[in-house]
Parts: sequence; C-alpha cells; structure tokens
Amino acid sequence: MTPASERPHVVIVGAGFGGLTAARAFRRSDVDVTIIDENNHHTFQPLLYQVATATLNPSDITAPIRHVLRSQKNATVLLAEVVGIDVANQNLTVDEGEGRSGVIHYDYLILAAGARHSYFGHDEWEPIAPGLKGINDALEIRRRFLLALERAELSDDPEERKEYLTIVVIGGGPTGVELAGLIPDVLRGIRRDFRRIDPSRMRVVLVEGGPRLLAAFPQEISDHALADLHSLGVEVRLNSVVSRVEPGVACLGSGECIETRTIFWAAGNAASPLGKMLGVPLDRAGRVIVESDLSVPGHPEVFVIGDMATLKDSRGVQVPWVAPAANQEGKRAADNVTRRIRDDKTVPFRYFNKGNLATIGRYKAVADFGSFRVTGWIAWWFWLFVHIMYLVGFRNRLSVLLQWAYSYFTYQRGVRLITHADTERRARVTRGT
Amino acid sequence: MTPASERPHVVIVGAGFGGLTAARAFRRSDVDVTIIDENNHHTFQPLLYQVATATLNPSDITAPIRHVLRSQKNATVLLAEVVGIDVANQNLTVDEGEGRSGVIHYDYLILAAGARHSYFGHDEWEPIAPGLKGINDALEIRRRFLLALERAELSDDPEERKEYLTIVVIGGGPTGVELAGLIPDVLRGIRRDFRRIDPSRMRVVLVEGGPRLLAAFPQEISDHALADLHSLGVEVRLNSVVSRVEPGVACLGSGECIETRTIFWAAGNAASPLGKMLGVPLDRAGRVIVESDLSVPGHPEVFVIGDMATLKDSRGVQVPWVAPAANQEGKRAADNVTRRIRDDKTVPFRYFNKGNLATIGRYKAVADFGSFRVTGWIAWWFWLFVHIMYLVGFRNRLSVLLQWAYSYFTYQRGVRLITHADTERRARVTRGT
Repeated sequence: MTPASERPHVVIVGAGFGGLTAARAFRRSDVDVTIIDENNHHTFQPLLYQVATATLNPSDITAPIRHVLRSQKNATVLLAEVVGIDVANQNLTVDEGEGRSGVIHYDYLILAAGARHSYFGHDEWEPIAPGLKGINDALEIRRRFLLALERAELSDDPEERKEYLTIVVIGGGPTGVELAGLIPDVLRGIRRDFRRIDPSRMRVVLVEGGPRLLAAFPQEISDHALADLHSLGVEVRLNSVVSRVEPGVACLGSGECIETRTIFWAAGNAASPLGKMLGVPLDRAGRVIVESDLSVPGHPEVFVIGDMATLKDSRGVQVPWVAPAANQEGKRAADNVTRRIRDDKTVPFRYFNKGNLATIGRYKAVADFGSFRVTGWIAWWFWLFVHIMYLVGFRNRLSVLLQWAYSYFTYQRGVRLITHADTERRARVTRGT
Repeated sequence: MTPASERPHVVIVGAGFGGLTAARAFRRSDVDVTIIDENNHHTFQPLLYQVATATLNPSDITAPIRHVLRSQKNATVLLAEVVGIDVANQNLTVDEGEGRSGVIHYDYLILAAGARHSYFGHDEWEPIAPGLKGINDALEIRRRFLLALERAELSDDPEERKEYLTIVVIGGGPTGVELAGLIPDVLRGIRRDFRRIDPSRMRVVLVEGGPRLLAAFPQEISDHALADLHSLGVEVRLNSVVSRVEPGVACLGSGECIETRTIFWAAGNAASPLGKMLGVPLDRAGRVIVESDLSVPGHPEVFVIGDMATLKDSRGVQVPWVAPAANQEGKRAADNVTRRIRDDKTVPFRYFNKGNLATIGRYKAVADFGSFRVTGWIAWWFWLFVHIMYLVGFRNRLSVLLQWAYSYFTYQRGVRLITHADTERRARVTRGT
C-alpha cells in the first residue's frame, strides 16, 4: 500500500479531530497522504453521550472518513489497525483484518490515535463499567441503559428493581457531567411507556474523585454545574474515589456501597499504546512527551498530537486534551512536516484557548471563555450553535438539528434501539467476567 | 408477570405487523394484553434492504414497542424470548435473559412470531450467506457490503479484488429484487470516495430458482423488473438453483461457479419454531395449518397469524405472507378472541388484496393492483407514498423522507457506518465456519 510515486509519503494514524485536520492541511501539498484508522468513520466525540442516551443516531455524529476526504486526491484512506512501529526503518506494521498484515513505509509520520479511559490499574472493571470513547462504547452504554429499564419493568423483586433503577456515573469531567445531566431528561421523556415502574424516579449518582466537578473550568462554573445537577435530581459525590466495582455494586473510598446494575466510566485517560512503541519518555497516562514543534525527541520525522501527546506550549501553558487543541496541533504538525520537506525550520506549537463548554440537561449549559463566563440558557444556545457548526457534513448537521428539535419539543427519545449485535458483545462480556 | 386482575389475559407473541395490529385492536377491550418480543422494537421489514444498503438508519424503520403502545393502558410489553408452550395448561415459558426464566399463563394466545429464511437443509450456509429478516441482519449485511469495498480498495491482487467486487444475491422475490436493484445506485453514489477501485463497476448477480422474478406478481410485472435490473447492470440468472455455498464461492446447478466474497440470502422461508410446539400439523415451511377463523385445530383459545400461519381464506384464496395480510389477520384474530370471550361465533378470515409493490433502484418500481398494473416512476412515487404512510410514528416518517431526499438528490449514502459490535459477530461467524 506504499505509493509508488516520488513524492514524500506522509502517514497519519487516527482519523479523530487531530488526524483528520492534519490530513486536510495537506490538500494542496505535493505529498502522498495515507490516513489509517481502525474504523471507517470519524466520530464527533463531544456528542457521544447523546448517542449513549438514545437521543442521536450513531450516523448523526459520524462521517465515513473516505467521504470526508473524497475530493482530496492526494489522500488515501486505509481501514486497518497499526500494530507495530519500526522508527529506525520508518515502517508501520498494520493488521488489515481476516488474518492479513501489511507493512507501510513512511517518510513522515503523524500519530493521532487518541486515548481510552483509564481504570487506574483495575482493567477488570471495564466489562462492568464501560467507558465512552467511540461509537461502539456509546451503543453498549445505550444497550445497558435501555435494558436496565426493561429488567426493572420485568422484575417482581423490589430490591432487584431498585438496583436496576440506579445508575452510577464515575468521573465528574465534561463527559460524566453531560451524561449524568441528560439521563433525567431522557427518563422523563419515556415515563409513559412503562406500566410497573416510573423511569423518572431512577436514581442517578455522579462520583468525582476531586473536590469539584469540571476541574478544567473555573470554580464558578463548577458550582453552577453542581447546582444544575442537583436541581435535576442527580446525586453528586465529591472527593469520592471508587474503591471497588463488582457486578451489582460500586463502592466508594468512604465505605459507601451503591447497589446498581448500571455503572458508566468517565474517569481518567490512557493514551493509545502506540506511543510506547516509539521508545521515548511518556507521562503517567502513557502520552508522548513531545518537543515544542510536536515532533518526537530524536525523530524529527515523527509527530504526535492530540490525546496521545503532552506538552507545555511556547508560553508555558499545558495544552489540554480537548478537540480544539487536537485540531490546532493537527494543523501545526502538517505545517511542520511541510517545513521539514522544504528544509525550513519548524515552528513551535502555540495553543489558542477558544473556551470550554458543557451542557447539563435541557436548556442548561456552562461556558468559560477565559475573559468571560456564561451559564444558563444563553450558554446552552451557544453550545448548540458550536456543536452544529463543527459537525462534519451538511447531512449530519441537519439530521442532528432535527433530532434535537424532536427530542426537545416532544420529550421523546426516538433512537431507543436495543440491537442484537450487542448480544454478541454481552456474551463476550459475560465470559470475560 | 401474569396480571392479577379478573379480566381475560391475552398474550401475543411477536410485535411484527400482525402482533402489533392485534394488540392495538384490543385497545378498547376489557382484557389484559401482554405482548412478548425478543426485541424492544417493531421493525418495518419492507424497508430493511434500505438499512442493509446504508440508505436509512436502523432507527428510521423501527419504533420501540413500548412507545407504540404507550397510551394503551391495558397493554404490557415484555422483552423476552418464548422458549416453550404448554397448550394443555395454557402456559408459556419465557427466557428473560441473564439466565432467568418465567412462566406466563394465558387465557388466549395469538402467535405472530414470523419466519426466518430457509436454507433448504443447508443451515451451514447461513454464516456465509446471511439473510435479511431483522435489523441485526440488515446491520450485518451493511457491514459486509461496506467491508467488501474496503478490502477491494486495500487488495493488491487483481483476482482477489475481483472477488471482493462481486456480490451475489440469492432469491428473486421482492427482497432479492429490491436489494439487487438498490446496490448499483448506492455504488454510484460513493464512487468518488475510493482511489484504487471504481465501486460502480462492481458485479451484482441475482440468482432465482424459478423461471421468473417476483413470482407472486403477474408475468408482465416480472418482465418489467427483469428489464429494469438489466438496465441497471445487474446480471440475472433464472432457473438457477444454488448447489454449493462456500467462503469465496457460490455455485449454481448449471455448474457455473461465481467467485465472490459477498453472498446475501433472500430465498425461502422457515416459520418460527414455536409452531412446532403446538403439536398440530404444519406445512413444509413449518407454518401452522390454521382453521378458517385463524385458530389452531383443537385449541380454540390459540390463534396463529402472519408468516407463521397458512390457510386458504373463505373464498379459497391462499393468503400470501405479506405485511397487509398479517395486519388483516391480526385484526381478525383479535376480534375472534373478543367473540370467544363473549361466547359468540367466530368469523372466518377473508383476505383483501391491496396489491403488490416493489421498487427497483432509483425512481423505478412495479405495482400490481389486480385490476390494473403500474410500472416506472408513477409506481415509484406510489411506493414512496405507501411506505411513508405505513411507517409507525411521525418522527420515522419525517426522518425517512429527509434521508431519502438527501440520498436521491446527492447520490450520497450517509449511513455508511461499520460498527465494532459487528466485529464480535464476525469473530463468531469465523469460528462457526
């Protein structure tokens, strides 16, 4: 699959925000670009929790990578998994599925394979408390969420029914806060569909290890989020580390054990294991400590961006692991590759903070733009606008807008689909535990 | 789960067209209705092939059963699988998942669990040539269809690439004709997304055992469908029985072997195995031979409808296994239950043929209304109208209309999503073969 042309071959691993932005930045360059991803689609991660709560369709927040890059003739898309990096010879080993593997030579490499959740050394918790990083995770969480309601309706045992009607969300960052905040709204919408239970009385507990929610936001915003969640009926446990997760129960450091059949994990990050294959220093979360120009120490032809990389930018600011930062890094890495090809000096990365946004349930949101902060419905409309604008593809934008309009006006959830393919996964999870 | 009230308990197994129509027919009756289905959703089967070809979203053609029946207070929905019928004691054994089972007593039973494809004694072909009966089948077919294109783009071997660029559809009934007819259109839409292959040159072969396509339609319509498929570039093999299916190849009775990685099955029907548990005579496809009032011989309290039943109606017409017939039977069965409760005489079923419709690619369709026949674009618009009208739920109608408009005007396919949960299934299929 290595192109036969004389032009430099730039290989990008991962078609998330960083990787896709980098690929597009080469659209007028005299290079061959190959972008490799395990999935055939780019995922708009900030809205994954809406798929997980049956508000949006998976296809609303995804776009086929091929389709996004269809007009960029110098870009080739490869559905494969990178399983080895030989930095000395500049080769990648890829698993193409069906037991086949291949080798791809690169002149320049941009690693943008992202991160998954970290279970802090308790990987055995993952099958019980799945995280939310990709569409498959979102579908699994949707399945569990909907099945818990079905089981509660079915159960004749009040204790068991209570367990099914309790959801624990672990991690008080944006994902945990948005997920916990949307659940009561979803439950309200489907109240009339059940005969024996009242879904709107479901108990939702949000557990955060630190002293406040949304630690990356200013204190004022955290306080607002906490108040908003309280008003929605969500129980919030701050300063609470999870000490034990087992089927049917989540225990906290305080000794409190919450009996529940549904635990979702939104805490901590572990960078893609590809970083380790470079043989350079990593931080505690497995991220590559990159140079100021985003290249890897000792390998000026390899760049690492997004959730896989850690650096303080040229002003000494720790770059956060958010979508806008990944986009900016993608552009910078692509430009630095072009500079290397021309034998120009590379340029250090500088992060431009566009602000932070999080939404909490219906019509509530919090926003922080450094110099000013917004909460309430103005922030919510702003959140809506920004998310619609950034969705890849016109079709997705229109579809998301209509699904939202439908959900918000009718309180109904249309995407409540428990699919059978998930049963396979359930079988696997059961075997795994 | 058996209601404690004094009212007669009517249990309906299956929430397809027949079962759902029967449940709704009881909305003003003084009975308790329990509807049991393995899925949480009703599926609009006639449009499954559009999900399989990445044109519609799964949620566009499904509706949560609970949601459909939310206002019908005498109806309870149960997500479970019926695994046993004790007709003597009027009890059902259900598998509720997670290793639990339960017993449900019925006063009246309506079986409407449908059918799956028949492999004519070659069940080992199923993993290689999946059928199209439910959403999970459609997602599996979508995955294989999209993956074949990815593998073709990836392959350096011209022979292998040719295999990936060949699709064989087995069965020339409405499902096979509609599926084979839509594929060229879909391929045209995504042509520009690939670099090394031209998807629009994919070979599509439709195999039919009988002498003509759409055997349930008049000859004239069959001829039209054949001509339409030819003009779309689909190769049609009539009078061709499949003699061998193996990974990589489909062989016909004529001795012709077609090398292909993608085989879809749309031939034959095998009724739900629940029919066999009644201990009454079945036809060759496993359907229950019901009395003229749709009840089971010797069991006036048990009714069988839809794809599980076979009968000649009161005028001696063999009732076909199509959605409108299932709906009509659902109404008749519900009314006959009500008559039994009141000790009235039951009424024989009489089929009202509303006509047959099938669509072939873009803007082409064939329709047969007995007294008159329509082909071409008028039939296509009629097809569109009928299908939109019958979709359950306003949201689905709007969403389907918009997705269609988008597909038809832009030639793009938005729902091209290869999901990971499918990988699990792939693993299973691989192990199975």
